[in-house]
Amino acid sequence: MHCEIICVGSELLTHKVNTHISYIGSNLKKIGLKLSRAIDVGDDFSEMSSVFKQSIKNSDIVFICGGLGPTFDDLTREVLSKVINKKLIFSNTIKEKLENFFKTRGIKMPENNLKQAFIFKDAKILDNHVGTAPGQWINYKNKIIILLPGPPAELYPIFENQVVPELKKLQKNIFITKEIQIFGLPESFVEEKLKNIVKIKQLNNIKLNYTILAQPLIITLSITASGSEEDKMQKVISEVENKVKRIFKKNIFSTDGSKLQEVVGDLLRKQKKTLSIAESCSGGLLGHLLTETPGSSDYFKEGAITYSNESKIKNLNVKKKTIQKFGAVSKHTAKEMAEGIKKKSQTDFSIAITGIAGPTGATPKKPVGLVYIACSTPESTTVKKFLFKGTRSEIKLKSALTAMDILRRQLYKIK
Amino acid sequence: MHCEIICVGSELLTHKVNTHISYIGSNLKKIGLKLSRAIDVGDDFSEMSSVFKQSIKNSDIVFICGGLGPTFDDLTREVLSKVINKKLIFSNTIKEKLENFFKTRGIKMPENNLKQAFIFKDAKILDNHVGTAPGQWINYKNKIIILLPGPPAELYPIFENQVVPELKKLQKNIFITKEIQIFGLPESFVEEKLKNIVKIKQLNNIKLNYTILAQPLIITLSITASGSEEDKMQKVISEVENKVKRIFKKNIFSTDGSKLQEVVGDLLRKQKKTLSIAESCSGGLLGHLLTETPGSSDYFKEGAITYSNESKIKNLNVKKKTIQKFGAVSKHTAKEMAEGIKKKSQTDFSIAITGIAGPTGATPKKPVGLVYIACSTPESTTVKKFLFKGTRSEIKLKSALTAMDILRRQLYKIK
Repeated sequence: MHCEIICVGSELLTHKVNTHISYIGSNLKKIGLKLSRAIDVGDDFSEMSSVFKQSIKNSDIVFICGGLGPTFDDLTREVLSKVINKKLIFSNTIKEKLENFFKTRGIKMPENNLKQAFIFKDAKILDNHVGTAPGQWINYKNKIIILLPGPPAELYPIFENQVVPELKKLQKNIFITKEIQIFGLPESFVEEKLKNIVKIKQLNNIKLNYTILAQPLIITLSITASGSEEDKMQKVISEVENKVKRIFKKNIFSTDGSKLQEVVGDLLRKQKKTLSIAESCSGGLLGHLLTETPGSSDYFKEGAITYSNESKIKNLNVKKKTIQKFGAVSKHTAKEMAEGIKKKSQTDFSIAITGIAGPTGATPKKPVGLVYIACSTPESTTVKKFLFKGTRSEIKLKSALTAMDILRRQLYKIK
Repeated sequence: MHCEIICVGSELLTHKVNTHISYIGSNLKKIGLKLSRAIDVGDDFSEMSSVFKQSIKNSDIVFICGGLGPTFDDLTREVLSKVINKKLIFSNTIKEKLENFFKTRGIKMPENNLKQAFIFKDAKILDNHVGTAPGQWINYKNKIIILLPGPPAELYPIFENQVVPELKKLQKNIFITKEIQIFGLPESFVEEKLKNIVKIKQLNNIKLNYTILAQPLIITLSITASGSEEDKMQKVISEVENKVKRIFKKNIFSTDGSKLQEVVGDLLRKQKKTLSIAESCSGGLLGHLLTETPGSSDYFKEGAITYSNESKIKNLNVKKKTIQKFGAVSKHTAKEMAEGIKKKSQTDFSIAITGIAGPTGATPKKPVGLVYIACSTPESTTVKKFLFKGTRSEIKLKSALTAMDILRRQLYKIK
């Protein structure tokens, strides 16, 4: 089935990054549907008409996100009504729901919210429990048009709870996806190594499909099996997964969609170990990532963002001499930072990051991107040297991710 | 002029968030061009052909990003060649550049990179100093087609240094844009207040245009003037800007595109003041944001991520009694955290954040989103209570942003 998504909103063409496409695309993939195209269009009647017309002509299923609000520039309903020549009908049920929405919040409903009570004849209403704009599922000439509200907090639950179950019913086959995440290898190297695997398009009569996504330091291989017998599909997926595992071994950090910080967190929790961190060039990003996981306070005890030399000396007990002799960005300083925070916080493990995030601060011997990462375990401290490429933000991110991967390997006792 | 952008890459329809559109869209706006549509399409010959054909038909200028790499699924050149019926020519100059690129990196050039030496007849080469794929500027039947490499690090400099200057030459009018950033007011409130301003579409014969962008806690109003007399345009923009300033006064934190962390950093630098921070629920995010600005070590001295009660007591000198009596998430703890880190680090200012980011950790009296932010100045310490809505990540972000805004107001002596 040919699927397209249209996102309506002038801000998407000037300022705002569109996260709906990857959200809807990745979720459709899991049920065996594929987005063929995604279009952002501004709040403009004639542009919207042309885009709607084109996508409905091309596709079996069209998702239209946004433009369902109460203001004058929310045009999705009106444009679609003209394009598919179907009338909008005022729904008293929706009107009551809208009134209730405002009532429970102690606000008088603005007059223009009544606009949101207009729905297409025979459309299935997709209830919005978070905001005011209901979604709509419209059957039109053997095609499906799905209207969804723009705000993510409203769109996500409607899509997951009301749209996905209905879409699944349309599919003859079932689909199983496995995500294998690989750390720290160049994209070209991984692609080369996977060449013979992604050729396997069928195994024991189960169809297989692959996608490779490269993000900073992390490459995700998704394997999707489609068929009708779940047991057989699981087996086939496992077989391919094992092939991949044999190639990348310890570089694989996740096979269940978990993020690196979640993997590290789970390992710490299971082993009943605690962690402290000392950050210089990453400036708090490692702490931020580690604490994105709910419940991280179980194992993450404290962090020190020691940006100045004095704070490294005072808080982490780094020797003044060490900084004078080797510099703040050195193997020796990193080691003392890790050991200092671990001793102070009395945790089982610690990580320390010191480096030059740039664009300033480099010297002839210490270029931008030079980063030392130390990991202190109950037994010993090891320090590794890196030369990361990229902008200031990218160097910070790569430092924090690599630090987590080093800890993961220590927790797995992989050297 | 009607402009469209096409981004090529299957990952954009499954996983990867597209940041090119907002980058190119916002930069085009500054020179008076407007994106009418943006399309993501996968690496698929027939889909790409259909999208290319459609966009070239619709538009005066089409940007095509991505699909210029060396691998088999990089199809942009081939598809476009078929669609516009123009032949690709092998360029020995590009070939030499490619060979040099690899030579200086001490790598033998893979055979398939030669694919990148094919260019359209009469195309203007857009030199790529970062990667291997050159951009191309193609004139075709009174239309312009601009090919750009996909990786941001390659696309940005080509776009800024080689594309924008050429596009400017095509414009009769000049354009001036002013961005006014407003902190901490609801979108509907800001829109209501701006109602009469955005009606001013012309002033002293200068055309005016507005966009409003809402992000968590920050609303950006962009005012664009177009005309031919720069002085007159600047005057008109100032006039409108002053009207906006009279409405939002101290809630405006930037009128030159600076981010909140840059504004706070500049104020600290100019006043020769230093800053330390203590973070609990934000987990390092405030430190991360503050250190995104190059040179932040001038004023940012250290941060403490005190996630556990013990670390608050030990590192920040928070009284055990205070935590026992009022809890870690309380006005009193926040105050002691801010005063503790300031004293310890001997900085002029300090900020402390303690709260419940959720989804766990709430109690009947302390809901998810409850956050206390303390700011300690050379004179005194003030604490404010907030109840933020959203996911764990959103609550962390709102806490960190609000902390910076509180500091900004202190530095401005705005109460």
